Amino acid sequence: MTKPLIQIALDSTDLDTAVSVANNVESFVDVIEVGTILAFAEGMKAVRTLRASHPDHIIVCDMKTTDGGAILARMAFEAGANWLTVSAAAHIATIEACKKIADELGGEIQIELYGNWTLEDAQAWVDLGIKQAIYHRSRDAELAGVSWTDSDINRMRVLSELGLEVSITGGIVPQDIHLFEGIKAKTFIAGRALANDTGKETAEALRTEINKYW
Amino acid sequence: MTKPLIQIALDSTDLDTAVSVANNVESFVDVIEVGTILAFAEGMKAVRTLRASHPDHIIVCDMKTTDGGAILARMAFEAGANWLTVSAAAHIATIEACKKIADELGGEIQIELYGNWTLEDAQAWVDLGIKQAIYHRSRDAELAGVSWTDSDINRMRVLSELGLEVSITGGIVPQDIHLFEGIKAKTFIAGRALANDTGKETAEALRTEINKYW
Repeated sequence: MTKPLIQIALDSTDLDTAVSVANNVESFVDVIEVGTILAFAEGMKAVRTLRASHPDHIIVCDMKTTDGGAILARMAFEAGANWLTVSAAAHIATIEACKKIADELGGEIQIELYGNWTLEDAQAWVDLGIKQAIYHRSRDAELAGVSWTDSDINRMRVLSELGLEVSITGGIVPQDIHLFEGIKAKTFIAGRALANDTGKETAEALRTEINKYW
Repeated sequence: MTKPLIQIALDSTDLDTAVSVANNVESFVDVIEVGTILAFAEGMKAVRTLRASHPDHIIVCDMKTTDGGAILARMAFEAGANWLTVSAAAHIATIEACKKIADELGGEIQIELYGNWTLEDAQAWVDLGIKQAIYHRSRDAELAGVSWTDSDINRMRVLSELGLEVSITGGIVPQDIHLFEGIKAKTFIAGRALANDTGKETAEALRTEINKYW
């Protein structure tokens, strides 16, 4: 199993702040995400700008694509994204349209798991050739105090066993990493925890834990 | 029952095109939507620009909000949107966060019906005070040739009976309007059909049909 990567989610409402954070963290993160908030605030200029200044990082465009898949996927990949998020709630035809553009332009699709998705849905994604999913503790659920549960972990295991690499997000801290042992974890995603003054130490602590379990 | 409005969805990938279309159609549409594609292409500048040039129209920001509800809702409403779309797949805490900001800033939330939503979900939205939903024939489903079905119509009726005003979209043509008789239809949404050379005639034909059934 390959070692999980560390991903920063840039979710500021202006590009200047995002650029500044990205410059501060680039030495200790593998993946830079243009979060939904940043993408809606500044448009694809945000992806183009971060692509230009971080040519060797994986860039994610977190559109949570729900419809209009072909056009949104082309926009994101042509702006320089490597990976694009697509909502689990999207019609399978939308997911297929995104996958087709990803294949054409050399990108990857990540299914972002929101809503009442089923195992049949997950199998349909795998059947389309999708390789990644994102297991998300909702920011708002997190704010509401809902923590990682056995049900979360079990669902991640099932996805992993279906062959999906799972990125994991929602209040990730080093002391939780052991919970995900045995799962094909693609990235651990954090925002403020990596952006603040102790971000480098947090990233090092995450890598130490990752190295124990993968 | 109030008469359904006519809404244009602006889904170009650049603001200049959207501005030009909006100027062409403003005399015969009630609601101008900054579509997801336009919003991701140009950011909130698109909402600000259209708000400034169409001060008397209802402006929708079609974010299909799935997480980070408070921040996205504030961005959209402060940019000048009257209505904000929120995905049915969002956690109820996200929908509640959006509703709270809408109440604070004088906006409205529209639940955009994607994914495996249930009647229990719909009741929970109504319980939060949500007044609008959008019934969407997926653009990609439409491209795949999936038409309006009895199941579509029945689900709209159920939502309407729960008290939700339903906006209806996905290849809307005047000859289909009769299908939705008896439903609390808030708007009929179209894009290219209103933007092209015969857009004004299409809008007139839609209003003629609307006047027959509401």
